[in-house]
Amino acid sequence: MSDAGISRRQLLAAAGGAAVGGVMGAGIATAVSADDSARDQPERIPFDGAHQAGIITPAQDRLHFAAFDLADGAGRDDLRELLAMWTAAARRMTAGLPAGAAASDPAAPPTDTGEAQGLPPAQLTVTFGLGPGLFGATGRDRLGLGDRRPARLAALPALPGDELDPDRSGGDLCVQACADDPQVAFHAVRNLARIGRGVVVMRWSQLGFGRTSRTSTAQVTPRNLMGFKDGTNNITAEDPKSLAAHVWAAEGEPAWMRGGTYLVARRIRMLIEVWDRAALEDQEKTIGRQKGSGAPLGSEAEHDPLDLQAHGADGPVIPARAHVRLAAPASNDGTRILRRGYSFTDGFDPELGQLDAGLFFISFQRDPRAFIALQNRLGAHDALNEYIKHVGSAVFAVPGGTRPGEAVGAGLFTSV
Amino acid sequence: MSDAGISRRQLLAAAGGAAVGGVMGAGIATAVSADDSARDQPERIPFDGAHQAGIITPAQDRLHFAAFDLADGAGRDDLRELLAMWTAAARRMTAGLPAGAAASDPAAPPTDTGEAQGLPPAQLTVTFGLGPGLFGATGRDRLGLGDRRPARLAALPALPGDELDPDRSGGDLCVQACADDPQVAFHAVRNLARIGRGVVVMRWSQLGFGRTSRTSTAQVTPRNLMGFKDGTNNITAEDPKSLAAHVWAAEGEPAWMRGGTYLVARRIRMLIEVWDRAALEDQEKTIGRQKGSGAPLGSEAEHDPLDLQAHGADGPVIPARAHVRLAAPASNDGTRILRRGYSFTDGFDPELGQLDAGLFFISFQRDPRAFIALQNRLGAHDALNEYIKHVGSAVFAVPGGTRPGEAVGAGLFTSV
Repeated sequence: MSDAGISRRQLLAAAGGAAVGGVMGAGIATAVSADDSARDQPERIPFDGAHQAGIITPAQDRLHFAAFDLADGAGRDDLRELLAMWTAAARRMTAGLPAGAAASDPAAPPTDTGEAQGLPPAQLTVTFGLGPGLFGATGRDRLGLGDRRPARLAALPALPGDELDPDRSGGDLCVQACADDPQVAFHAVRNLARIGRGVVVMRWSQLGFGRTSRTSTAQVTPRNLMGFKDGTNNITAEDPKSLAAHVWAAEGEPAWMRGGTYLVARRIRMLIEVWDRAALEDQEKTIGRQKGSGAPLGSEAEHDPLDLQAHGADGPVIPARAHVRLAAPASNDGTRILRRGYSFTDGFDPELGQLDAGLFFISFQRDPRAFIALQNRLGAHDALNEYIKHVGSAVFAVPGGTRPGEAVGAGLFTSV
Repeated sequence: MSDAGISRRQLLAAAGGAAVGGVMGAGIATAVSADDSARDQPERIPFDGAHQAGIITPAQDRLHFAAFDLADGAGRDDLRELLAMWTAAARRMTAGLPAGAAASDPAAPPTDTGEAQGLPPAQLTVTFGLGPGLFGATGRDRLGLGDRRPARLAALPALPGDELDPDRSGGDLCVQACADDPQVAFHAVRNLARIGRGVVVMRWSQLGFGRTSRTSTAQVTPRNLMGFKDGTNNITAEDPKSLAAHVWAAEGEPAWMRGGTYLVARRIRMLIEVWDRAALEDQEKTIGRQKGSGAPLGSEAEHDPLDLQAHGADGPVIPARAHVRLAAPASNDGTRILRRGYSFTDGFDPELGQLDAGLFFISFQRDPRAFIALQNRLGAHDALNEYIKHVGSAVFAVPGGTRPGEAVGAGLFTSV
């Protein structure tokens, strides 16, 4: 039984959806395998491929994102081993298997924390990123990796309107876990944190309860917490030309970044109570779209093109400071980014007397400067700024995909 | 179109799952109705009934719970009107309709915030409770309702091991929104907060991402964040005798409490990192059950009865301080409560260097003293105390159910 390749889903099926562990005896300890027979499950997203999963994978419903710092004293070998252990555990968890391959010894801590046992893989993806600090870009080059820093990886500069909380910003490594079941996403982050103990310390984490992005033409455009459709004009998985031009790392990047990209995360708090008091027409002019249909102002349907030239009696139909005008590629020399954000709420903020809620913005781009240029414009002029605050920020290089058995970012450590 | 009785689900179906608002024109503004034609939707839980929904309703997957305080200067009439407005909005939202019945005026704020448009009702239930402060039980009787206080409603006493944060405790009113989609639950709480502006101020709120209770025999027992099945021996909807004996308010309560109950909420933080380092056998002895199967120690299957008399070579098979022994009705003069808790995580706590995660415990009982007696025993002796901390606490009287058109708690205001 110690190498049975039994997935959580299969366990559940075997037990008729009921007493899972009861049928399997030792339960969690028996569902262990290096041989992954769960590959064809409908709720399973393959871990390996040309790119890491979780970038152009159709956005799952829920997110658990975490940033980690390398612990004091941890060195280059520790980082390499961590990435190998994390990759192995993520590969197993995305297949619906427990994080650890070893059978549980009653006298030792379990190799999986157990809360996802009985749950399907739920389209889990785990995407890893490396922060600028690992390469000495924000201080001393303590790992001796400075000469391997991807040229486009640097801490984000100060941006207009930033009100950043250092406790929600930065990080040496990131883990983006997306799944249709939040317990499966939580389980992934928690087990990676457990496996990384001693080598990394969690810096911050963020739960996202609802996707706000459409990353495939097969998906309905979701609504963000302002009640507007978000991501109508996003780059989709079905548009390889745009992905090549705007998302995947450029020629000239190190080999381990081939098929990789850069991730920017921004915790954008929405001043929900203020927004909710704004008139519908003011909300629509702020965004530049109709709230109900998602159509651009002056148009009929969600996917009608933005007509930035259209004028009415009172001036431009889509106002000069409307969010969609300022964010449009036509206003930014053709710049596009792949957005993959999630709505969040972290309860009530007694200091401000308001809900702490908003958009956890994630974007992928071949060059973080694309985001920086966009945000310089939006942060300075966007009518939406009256209703939002950027309170967290981070950037990571996302290595390319893996072959079976290979560790994410392994190429970073091979001799040049 | 202003009274079309169109639910979000119907809008979605009409639009083939795609550009919802595009088909309907003004979108959100058109989906307004007092006539509820959405009653038979499979994902809809009826609002009205002998009891409020959300108590014995099979526990939905996600929770958004909020506690509110009455604003300074708000009086008895304000409270009565608030409950009427909240009930009307909740009745609409649980039917998949926007919170407000009026068509949106472009020059006015929308009567619904919009983020649930296009989503099904997702089994939404909204359950209201009244805190002891409303009746002057924790201070001045400013509403003149002191003589109507249900006799069993009083602030919880200090309990062993309490480490309560006042910012996560108490409240004059509570809203428990449960749904299978967290965006639908969030939407409900947010719109009720919006409607209540000026009369109530949110005091705290809690998102729960995964149910930890089994409130129907048709449900699989879920796992909590300790990885153990939770709620195996819970009272279920299929057991009206136990509900009558332990959950529904007793004879002699005021008429508006008929079919009502008392809600206790406890934010129980789990010391996840400590737990994860404990050996499997120690975890199992702490709980008194097997982790994989959920079976009591010494037994075979999850639903085998607890044998508290069984002894092995080393003493009782279920240890003296095991959680299930101390919590068992047999150890508590037959006391039972209906649990309806949810797992939560609120990110990383930089002060403690640990994940802020655990169980948001909710129980319903005919008398809060049942919970108090249990927690006095558990808080003093439970082996689990090494791994948990109670950091939030609140108690509310939950009025009985409503007839169509009737407001929750309306009987509280009728002349005696």
